[in-house]
Amino acid sequence: MQTPWEHRYAYRTKTMGSSVIRELLKLTEQPDIISFAGGLPAPEVFPVRQFQEACNRVLSNSGAQALQYSATEGLLPLREMITKHNEKFSVRATPDNVMITSGSQQALDFIGRVFINRGDYVVVESPTYLGALQAWNAYGAQYIPVPCDEDGMVVDKLEEALRFGPKLIYVLPNFQNPSGSTMSLERRKRLVELADRYGVPIVEDDPYGLLRYDGEHLPSVALLDSQYRNETSGEYNGNVIYLSTFSKLLAPGLRLAWVVAPREVIRKLVMTKQAADLHTSSFNQYVAYDVAKSGFLDEHVKVIRATYKERRDVMLEVMEEVFPSEVKWKKPMGGMFFWSVMPESIDAAEILKVAIERKVAFVPGAAFHPDGTGKNTMRLNFSFSSPDTIREGITRLGITLKEALKNSK
Amino acid sequence: MQTPWEHRYAYRTKTMGSSVIRELLKLTEQPDIISFAGGLPAPEVFPVRQFQEACNRVLSNSGAQALQYSATEGLLPLREMITKHNEKFSVRATPDNVMITSGSQQALDFIGRVFINRGDYVVVESPTYLGALQAWNAYGAQYIPVPCDEDGMVVDKLEEALRFGPKLIYVLPNFQNPSGSTMSLERRKRLVELADRYGVPIVEDDPYGLLRYDGEHLPSVALLDSQYRNETSGEYNGNVIYLSTFSKLLAPGLRLAWVVAPREVIRKLVMTKQAADLHTSSFNQYVAYDVAKSGFLDEHVKVIRATYKERRDVMLEVMEEVFPSEVKWKKPMGGMFFWSVMPESIDAAEILKVAIERKVAFVPGAAFHPDGTGKNTMRLNFSFSSPDTIREGITRLGITLKEALKNSK
Repeated sequence: MQTPWEHRYAYRTKTMGSSVIRELLKLTEQPDIISFAGGLPAPEVFPVRQFQEACNRVLSNSGAQALQYSATEGLLPLREMITKHNEKFSVRATPDNVMITSGSQQALDFIGRVFINRGDYVVVESPTYLGALQAWNAYGAQYIPVPCDEDGMVVDKLEEALRFGPKLIYVLPNFQNPSGSTMSLERRKRLVELADRYGVPIVEDDPYGLLRYDGEHLPSVALLDSQYRNETSGEYNGNVIYLSTFSKLLAPGLRLAWVVAPREVIRKLVMTKQAADLHTSSFNQYVAYDVAKSGFLDEHVKVIRATYKERRDVMLEVMEEVFPSEVKWKKPMGGMFFWSVMPESIDAAEILKVAIERKVAFVPGAAFHPDGTGKNTMRLNFSFSSPDTIREGITRLGITLKEALKNSK
Repeated sequence: MQTPWEHRYAYRTKTMGSSVIRELLKLTEQPDIISFAGGLPAPEVFPVRQFQEACNRVLSNSGAQALQYSATEGLLPLREMITKHNEKFSVRATPDNVMITSGSQQALDFIGRVFINRGDYVVVESPTYLGALQAWNAYGAQYIPVPCDEDGMVVDKLEEALRFGPKLIYVLPNFQNPSGSTMSLERRKRLVELADRYGVPIVEDDPYGLLRYDGEHLPSVALLDSQYRNETSGEYNGNVIYLSTFSKLLAPGLRLAWVVAPREVIRKLVMTKQAADLHTSSFNQYVAYDVAKSGFLDEHVKVIRATYKERRDVMLEVMEEVFPSEVKWKKPMGGMFFWSVMPESIDAAEILKVAIERKVAFVPGAAFHPDGTGKNTMRLNFSFSSPDTIREGITRLGITLKEALKNSK
């Protein structure tokens, strides 16, 4: 007889709905569509030659180790290199504070597994990163969305949220996905103080920190937290779990990211990873280390910045020219996204259907709001498409938006 | 103030004990120890040159795609290749029945996530693979261990277990880890019938199926199930979730494995993977496909078989020579492990402490028994060490065992 699969699934699987947005996004994969929907790096900046040389060197010199099973926490030289990188751009830590994950999505999943009981609250920015919601929905999280302005979370509302007893606070302080906004230094400091007062750990997700096109690098929440508690030991022992990734600095196809956390938390994450997938690809860790070990990233990030800054500026210029005046957006100081707000009467999912007929796509913003708001918002990626493609795509989208606004009147 | 981390963890994390065996195994990582503890392939058989050529080709011809984000279910040409491989060695299926995972451990984790509610029963062979227990403990599984003889699960006991209402049946029919035993054709057929009668899905874990050194390849449980239900469509729609891996055929450092399951189950697994790590490394999938696409695996597996058969035979020969007569084992027809049973009075964990002083290590068997039995058993890996190293290590272990038996009298 046929297996009655639907009766065999766990409760968590039965509540795992098929995502409307995933169905929509499948349509955007047609080859002739100009897609501002994904969050893809520009393939033009992938350091293909450097990878080729690194693969050859790694296989010639360390083939037996690079192709073998390896430690769950990750390759030690790579973790050492990451601590040096972190010391410059985020927070001082030792290799024992660092675990390698298969992309930041895996770090989010493991954090959910280690911390979240069914029904636990997580404080999130509104809007927030869809992937975190997907990861933590699997563990039955509930969300407390805190309103944001262009400087990040509104602090009064954050304190109100903390009094609900959340398990974690999740923030993306730099060029947030999806809103593009950057948390101000003042707000970062207040976040650290409030989190400490209420005893609530912070998850700081920082995939784009180095992709800044205007203004000065701001200290990470992890660093401010470290300073707030006068940490001097060199080991990281604060209140922040910090995530970053090679996906935007080297290439996402490697699936290589890292977590910085107190040694005690890393131990739990390592036990989780041991049961979940043993370890991240040894070969990819060797190759990424070989590519990056001699300071390559510092040079390479300049190329990425120049490329993405141009694309952001082109998108901005064309939006100003062709988008109707009722549609609003802010210029992001870095990252990969424009966030655009339309009049309340407009449903971005409806706009997308028409846009796809015109062969242009974006992500409707509702999915980034755990409370079902944001129907009139959309996220536009500027890193993936060439300047000419951006011009053409935004022009098509401008026509679509103008029509929709005319029809809605 | 310091974050009270221990009060922030989820319930599942608090019950996640630090594994005694992991602590012991750390000791076996000293470089001068002869370790029969791990389950590592021989690095001598890694096709390093083929990988080097494949990396160069992939980066030259498909660098932009191989380094980019890719589909959660896995690279289509790789899934197509796997269906051809499966048709020869396991079961007929379409690429829609196949998902790529980051090692079989990840497949076990996802199966736990999709199927297991806290307290659900899983029928397992006794002993069974430790990694499956680790993966499913995270979801609160309970186990019904079914006794095994040299032909696999004792069928009467299996039927008794099925009447307890388990969620899944987990088996490793070929050269089981840890026991080395192979389920007979007769038992496989009975398993299929009983599972169908009780409506309980089977998870068939087959990492070593092609590593057979004696006798003839037996049909997979998935194939027998398919024949039992007269499947003719070419799409796989049976009662088995079949797992296999490139870890033992190419290299474990790539973290590449696959699941075959009905399309409906694959869809749930893909949604799980989307939230867990987006997808498995695109680069590694391109490289594995490039290495394997022209029939390389068929030739390569002959080299692996010849290497491991020699090592198995050497280990057997020396065990017969130096192990005390009270210690029993069976010759495995394939795979990577000898399983050895000592008199009940002997505790393998105590033996290991002495053995480590003599610079030789193995895994005590208790960890493979979910019911806490098996203290007098041990698993010995023969794939990783050279024949000379095996001779030396087994000789040291023989001395250790003789001493322990003398002292226990």
